[in-house]
Amino acid sequence: MQIIQDISLVKSLCRSLKQEGSLGFVPTMGYLHEGHLSLVKQSVKENPNTVVSIFVNPSQFGPNEDLATYPRDLERDAGLLKECGAGYVFTPTAQTMYPDGFDTWVVPDKLASVLCGKSRPGHFRGVATIVLKLINITAADHMYMGLKDYQQLRILKQMVIDLHLDCEIVACPIVRESDGLAMSSRNSYLNPSERKQALSLYHGLLKARELFEQGERDCGRIIETIKKSIQDSGGRIDYIECVNPLSLQSVQEAEADTRMMLAVYFGKTRLIDNMALKA
Amino acid sequence: MQIIQDISLVKSLCRSLKQEGSLGFVPTMGYLHEGHLSLVKQSVKENPNTVVSIFVNPSQFGPNEDLATYPRDLERDAGLLKECGAGYVFTPTAQTMYPDGFDTWVVPDKLASVLCGKSRPGHFRGVATIVLKLINITAADHMYMGLKDYQQLRILKQMVIDLHLDCEIVACPIVRESDGLAMSSRNSYLNPSERKQALSLYHGLLKARELFEQGERDCGRIIETIKKSIQDSGGRIDYIECVNPLSLQSVQEAEADTRMMLAVYFGKTRLIDNMALKA
Repeated sequence: MQIIQDISLVKSLCRSLKQEGSLGFVPTMGYLHEGHLSLVKQSVKENPNTVVSIFVNPSQFGPNEDLATYPRDLERDAGLLKECGAGYVFTPTAQTMYPDGFDTWVVPDKLASVLCGKSRPGHFRGVATIVLKLINITAADHMYMGLKDYQQLRILKQMVIDLHLDCEIVACPIVRESDGLAMSSRNSYLNPSERKQALSLYHGLLKARELFEQGERDCGRIIETIKKSIQDSGGRIDYIECVNPLSLQSVQEAEADTRMMLAVYFGKTRLIDNMALKA
Repeated sequence: MQIIQDISLVKSLCRSLKQEGSLGFVPTMGYLHEGHLSLVKQSVKENPNTVVSIFVNPSQFGPNEDLATYPRDLERDAGLLKECGAGYVFTPTAQTMYPDGFDTWVVPDKLASVLCGKSRPGHFRGVATIVLKLINITAADHMYMGLKDYQQLRILKQMVIDLHLDCEIVACPIVRESDGLAMSSRNSYLNPSERKQALSLYHGLLKARELFEQGERDCGRIIETIKKSIQDSGGRIDYIECVNPLSLQSVQEAEADTRMMLAVYFGKTRLIDNMALKA
């Protein structure tokens, strides 16, 4: 497995890899867990070559967020990626991705004005910009992303359509710990008591889904159920919403594809999770 | 010469054209003049195939600007392009370029905060977005643009760098009428008396350049010279600035590559022009 920092090197490498068939790409911020690895494994299965990027993208962190403390462990990550069969790891530096004079941003509009976009102004601008850069550098045919970041996925799928990109985004299921907590690099911030509390996200979502399966169609009551589960555990809610899966706008009446979306703090750690109302 | 409206059709056409060698592309808003045609001719000379787009891009017009009245004449344009040897004309509709749900904008930051960007908020967002879309649709190797829209050119060159596009922007000289007025589709708005007044732009720039050649290095006095020429003619100045050609920031001390930039109203018509201090 090759680890490459240089942008032009990766650019020309990817173009030659594409002569062997489709190129799969998995963008990550490193500190890999089974969620990331499931994306890599799927890409390795579906493409003759797979590139994984590891880049803690400064432009998607707000001024008071955890850029400096975001967990990093390149050596461990490289070992895991090698085991999964990834051929190439792209680890650019912030200085080469955002050199002096960098001036061009990709800005999602309405889809970024709700949910996490409301709580984290500029976050999705940073995400869309870095992902477009990475897609253009790699010229990837397939990009693999997890459904855990549902809003991100929706925004990037819209970006691919709006900007006529030749890259298909492959949405992959949320990978959960054995007890149900959605895997996230930020789970490493949780102390043992917060780790227990955080289970209320999954339990709340499951209860809400049961409610829907029992016939409940009022999103207010569905949200109340999740809220109670989380508040009982001691979580501090950023948002809980039932949204249309395409527009991400809040809905009143629940349908099978309505998506429950939430962001909750446990201590200083902000976690997100989501689930469709029908399994 | 083929005229094509459909985006997917042009997309696949361009990909097959590229197998014959480099693809040249000239983006226009139509109502073509010798300035546009000089770009087309250069592209035809330098590439086996040339695509010209004609699209009056709504997103680069402000709410009080001239979108509705912008001059259009597709039949005449097509005839001119055929004479120049362009093989393909792409004429998408606004509805297909900006369908319902369109949500992704390309936003230049600092470079768009000065000069025309100040007077026309959102203009360069519209320009950068449409040009990225067109570059991605055509997969053009070379895109030809005139130096008359100097700020636009600078912003798009930065976009190509920032977003790692495989498209080289070829900057082409300003084409002027025999009396010196820079060619522009908007010149058609001028009544005969405004048409005479508008000559003051070119004359002012020439006088300022003479001043520099005589040793003047104070941008304040250089700007004063242009200002006098224009005000004497009856033009209403939007801005006149001497700027660094890369950063587009105002400079105090003139150097050979300092660029004089201006936007001036004659009646309701806003014209732009620019010139380097050294010929």
